[in-house]
Amino acid sequence: MVSVVGIIAACAILSLVVAAFYAVKVNSLKLTAADIGASEDVVARLREISGAISEGAMAFLSQEYKFVAIFASAFAVVIAFTLDNPATTGVNEGLYSASAFVIGAVISSVCAFMGMKIATKGNVRTTVAARRSITDAFRVAFQSGAVMGFGLTGLAVLGLLLVVVVFDSMLASSGIERHYIMEMVAGFGLGGSTVALFGRVGGGIYTKAADVGADLVGKVEAGIPEDDPRNPAVIADNVGDNVGDIAGMGADLFGSCAEATCAALVIGATSAALTSDLNTLLYPLLISALGIPVCLITAFFARLKPDATQVEPTLRGQLIISTILMTVALYLVTDKVLPESFLIGSLSVSNSQALYSVLAGLWSGLLIGYMTEVYTSHGFKHVRRVAAASDKGPAINIIYGLSLGYESAVVPVIAIAVTTYASWTMAGMYGIALAAIGMISTIATGLTIDAYGPVSDNAGGIAEMAELGKEIRARTDLLDAAGNTTAAIGKGFAIGSAVLTALALFAAFLTRANFQSLNMLSPMVFAGLFVGGVLPFLFTAQTMLAVGRAAEGMIHEVRRQFREIPGLLEGKARADYRSCVAISTASALREMVAPAILVIFSPILVGVVFGVEALAGVLAGSLISGVVMALSTSNSGGGWDNAKKYIEKNEGKGTDKHKAAVVGDTVGDPFKDTSGPSLNILMKLMAIISLVFVPFFDSAHKWLLAALGLGQ
Amino acid sequence: MVSVVGIIAACAILSLVVAAFYAVKVNSLKLTAADIGASEDVVARLREISGAISEGAMAFLSQEYKFVAIFASAFAVVIAFTLDNPATTGVNEGLYSASAFVIGAVISSVCAFMGMKIATKGNVRTTVAARRSITDAFRVAFQSGAVMGFGLTGLAVLGLLLVVVVFDSMLASSGIERHYIMEMVAGFGLGGSTVALFGRVGGGIYTKAADVGADLVGKVEAGIPEDDPRNPAVIADNVGDNVGDIAGMGADLFGSCAEATCAALVIGATSAALTSDLNTLLYPLLISALGIPVCLITAFFARLKPDATQVEPTLRGQLIISTILMTVALYLVTDKVLPESFLIGSLSVSNSQALYSVLAGLWSGLLIGYMTEVYTSHGFKHVRRVAAASDKGPAINIIYGLSLGYESAVVPVIAIAVTTYASWTMAGMYGIALAAIGMISTIATGLTIDAYGPVSDNAGGIAEMAELGKEIRARTDLLDAAGNTTAAIGKGFAIGSAVLTALALFAAFLTRANFQSLNMLSPMVFAGLFVGGVLPFLFTAQTMLAVGRAAEGMIHEVRRQFREIPGLLEGKARADYRSCVAISTASALREMVAPAILVIFSPILVGVVFGVEALAGVLAGSLISGVVMALSTSNSGGGWDNAKKYIEKNEGKGTDKHKAAVVGDTVGDPFKDTSGPSLNILMKLMAIISLVFVPFFDSAHKWLLAALGLGQ
Repeated sequence: MVSVVGIIAACAILSLVVAAFYAVKVNSLKLTAADIGASEDVVARLREISGAISEGAMAFLSQEYKFVAIFASAFAVVIAFTLDNPATTGVNEGLYSASAFVIGAVISSVCAFMGMKIATKGNVRTTVAARRSITDAFRVAFQSGAVMGFGLTGLAVLGLLLVVVVFDSMLASSGIERHYIMEMVAGFGLGGSTVALFGRVGGGIYTKAADVGADLVGKVEAGIPEDDPRNPAVIADNVGDNVGDIAGMGADLFGSCAEATCAALVIGATSAALTSDLNTLLYPLLISALGIPVCLITAFFARLKPDATQVEPTLRGQLIISTILMTVALYLVTDKVLPESFLIGSLSVSNSQALYSVLAGLWSGLLIGYMTEVYTSHGFKHVRRVAAASDKGPAINIIYGLSLGYESAVVPVIAIAVTTYASWTMAGMYGIALAAIGMISTIATGLTIDAYGPVSDNAGGIAEMAELGKEIRARTDLLDAAGNTTAAIGKGFAIGSAVLTALALFAAFLTRANFQSLNMLSPMVFAGLFVGGVLPFLFTAQTMLAVGRAAEGMIHEVRRQFREIPGLLEGKARADYRSCVAISTASALREMVAPAILVIFSPILVGVVFGVEALAGVLAGSLISGVVMALSTSNSGGGWDNAKKYIEKNEGKGTDKHKAAVVGDTVGDPFKDTSGPSLNILMKLMAIISLVFVPFFDSAHKWLLAALGLGQ
Repeated sequence: MVSVVGIIAACAILSLVVAAFYAVKVNSLKLTAADIGASEDVVARLREISGAISEGAMAFLSQEYKFVAIFASAFAVVIAFTLDNPATTGVNEGLYSASAFVIGAVISSVCAFMGMKIATKGNVRTTVAARRSITDAFRVAFQSGAVMGFGLTGLAVLGLLLVVVVFDSMLASSGIERHYIMEMVAGFGLGGSTVALFGRVGGGIYTKAADVGADLVGKVEAGIPEDDPRNPAVIADNVGDNVGDIAGMGADLFGSCAEATCAALVIGATSAALTSDLNTLLYPLLISALGIPVCLITAFFARLKPDATQVEPTLRGQLIISTILMTVALYLVTDKVLPESFLIGSLSVSNSQALYSVLAGLWSGLLIGYMTEVYTSHGFKHVRRVAAASDKGPAINIIYGLSLGYESAVVPVIAIAVTTYASWTMAGMYGIALAAIGMISTIATGLTIDAYGPVSDNAGGIAEMAELGKEIRARTDLLDAAGNTTAAIGKGFAIGSAVLTALALFAAFLTRANFQSLNMLSPMVFAGLFVGGVLPFLFTAQTMLAVGRAAEGMIHEVRRQFREIPGLLEGKARADYRSCVAISTASALREMVAPAILVIFSPILVGVVFGVEALAGVLAGSLISGVVMALSTSNSGGGWDNAKKYIEKNEGKGTDKHKAAVVGDTVGDPFKDTSGPSLNILMKLMAIISLVFVPFFDSAHKWLLAALGLGQ
């Protein structure tokens, strides 16, 4: 028997080494006049701009995480005091869960800072590299992304491994059964997810307030181009790309990875054959660990030819290669780790059934990603239809764009349904958790590509602001164009994995709450389904209104500066970028509170007041409508964005048709970058809160019934 | 014991007499120069316009129903041949079901024709009456609506009663148990619902193609006012109000009434205590019958004072009065008809519990209606917020409007969840059906008010087109303004009743398929939930794209006429209204096919291929996301419409802010008048198809498995 713990640890450390290596490579690019062959003026301007972006990003992150730290500390105290499972005598389950929670939250925060740091260094270095060649520029952007990809994966795997091993060595010796230990480990996922909530929602509001504000006043009213340095909101907009797409996306995927693994551990630990040996029990974590060498090999294929006219094929190739390699790796390893057959509940599962469950998730993730591209890239008919319809005005553009999103959800949802059915049938609820892990197993590649996007986007913005000339901007535009498509694919992946993760957590919750079956024909469950079904809509309304309000503040400020700063529009005076950054920061922090409260307290309220049966209904309902809303808002947004770009490419800007497309693009901003991605967190966080708080619901609900005189 | 059959028959006949009385009153208003005190020219113009509307409406209806007749005949044959329950030996269940289906379809069609006939007579008579006074005009519009309200209710109740009594006397004597008979009666609901599908979808596409086309070219591009006779699409637009809001809404509510009653009969007939006496079994139909005298008394309160400045309070009063009276009537009757206690499954239900279930539906309907008003009337903050945000441009208007819709679903869905929980807990699945009937019990009043809307709207259009002067237009505008709000409330009611009806049908389906419980933790059920959840989104995309395409055709035609007919825009030449009417008709008929196929064949496909368990999941999933989509699209649409009106009232037309609001209003058109209302049909029709085809699924699924070699 191999030492799975050792392999996991080795992979995780490899991941961190790779991340460090890329970080050093990116950092080693010097920004002096001699090194980059530009005038001192240009260099000063580059430093100024990238410094402002970096400063703005860090300022936001520190304030956000100050808030998160306070909230998470309070929440940790709540966990420590409310969770004491009477079954685990002699151990304060709450304390362990709270510790795991804190560790998960801290690691997630560290990852976000790390990603942000490298992205705000990589962006300007990509711009500079673009002076030399497209190949160089691509390499810098890709390596910056890889720091995030490998750094986060390594930390996630290592952190989780340490928690499992430490808890296990502390508790298993005192006779606590492993399935109780894994329930405590689940706090880790909750920590990651809580940070992700604020990262996604806060970051999403930040980025879109800046983007919408910059576009509506700058592009539409004043008629100046995107990323023009005269626009006061331009730095905030570039900061936003980082806090939304890097910190937010990173925290989201960190959460999926941690939570899916926790779900698999909780469910797996109920099986005697799996839990007898920690090496066997850790199979789910091994999958994520295996993804690391797979993604590293994949990264060697990420090269751009000097005469490349598009970057998409290279990036798409990454996803396909990593999926194929991962399949091979899983084939080689699974039967060496898992016993030939084991029981999940009363279902006998073979190790090849477990393998197929992982593969079902892995490949359906690729399918979902591909379908996202079909609906959001202007290489396909859907986006072109939106573009063509724009000549009938903005209303028709909106109608077509919304329809595109609704329709785009069909195939992915069917893929999820089939994956759910197949993995559940083969390996019970353990199969669902494995499918979720399978989908997220190539996370290092996925995140690399995701983080590549905003780095390229920023690189273009910096080139524009530093007025570096058309040739360089053309190169960064080429990089950025691919970023848009892959960002959409990344979102598809993120949603797919969020749904399966949420479903796995739901399964773990049911396992922990001792549901053998859940009768849908029970009034409480059905009422719960209805209420759960409306929550994603309420949450979408909250986050969209938050962006609307925040953008209004930005619009007023940009208008004010254009009005009050003499010479600004003529390019003779500097805009006050800081005030816009401050507005985005303040409004994002203010506006993220209400949606966060909804997500965190709905399951607790339902669990305590109406009991776990109603809660099960609410979770299922929110999953059913949440997945469709998440997919359709993301894809509508991506479709509008690319329809606008398609018109720009073919017919140029300034026509009525283009203006109509800009309206769609602006509506799509909060759709695809705030509400849609935040719904991932809603689905997962509600499920993991339910999972972690099971023992509390039980006692609190009984206490409440007794207090109301309704107890049996 | 009273003769319930006699009372029901008496009420139904009363209803038809009332309808006839009002029809005679409306018709007795003569349209001669002497009678209305206008010049021959004006009279000729009035006749010409209203003739064109009436002709267009009838032309569309005849073509639509020709298609429906063919489809329904084919479907009837399918029913006759596929449904043979082996349990009912000696009786071809298919033949009876098909007969009930045909009768339901024919009555529903007759109702739509009747409503359309009176509406196209009432509209011009309301215009004429507005020359005298607002009180007169209101009375004519209200009475026109009442013809529809009482006529439809009377026919629905009488038709269903006849089917039950005839089937019962033919079959019960040959020893067929009543619960099998009621399963055959359910074909009646399917017939009504099938007609409703085409009415809602086809009518919805018709009305919005015309409306969007007329607005985008006429109002936005050419800058001419609403209902201006120079606009070639203006007649089609007015026709559309009738085919969408009268024929479509009527068929929808007819379907709800028939289906909810069928569901209650199917479930009730499984209870020995209820089924022993036909009088007792018919309690559900008695509720609808009792609504008739209640609504008649309510109608006496529908008076407008000569100095009235708004009509809303009068119409809203109708809903409140009818609800209160209905409550009293139910209190007086229930314990005289139902036994003191009876068994539903293994649950013992008292007659007061049955009563409370009906009341839960009745009052939550009123609450849902009220919440609809809160979110769609500019008397409240939500619409005003959309209006205020419009000064930031169309994109922000769209963001706020969509959010309004999403948020507006929360309270109604909670109301539905509570009603479901309460009625289900008190009276099992019978309780859900009773709640659905309770909500729809005051249908005569609801429909009167609904039909009042388009009559007033048309009256205003006719006044504008006949250039009758500002004073008259002001009066018709006053009538129409109330119509908008009450139309929104009517939609809320229609959705609420559709959901409860669908749930009741779902319950009846489960009862018939012998599900004692349905384990949600079964892979097939959960996969079904996911797939069901995405169907309403796909359907919404289909219907919205249908409107988009149809509107494009209209836009081209209107642009062509403006370009090619010399003197048209100067008012010196007549537009070619007929070609626009023809375009709306043709595209509505063409575009309604695909969504109809989706709704009708999805449940059949799932039932045959994956079995009834998967189908149960699909139905529940479609209900959960369908209700939220229906509410949010309807209310977003209503909110945009009234935000635009609010801006017009306070700041006038032509500003950028107003233009932004027009964009929202245009997006809202298919939302509120095509996709939203059509979702009602999706939910109900999928459920009743499942209910009616249960015996077929069973045998076909087994046959399929055997053919594929998968059978046990």
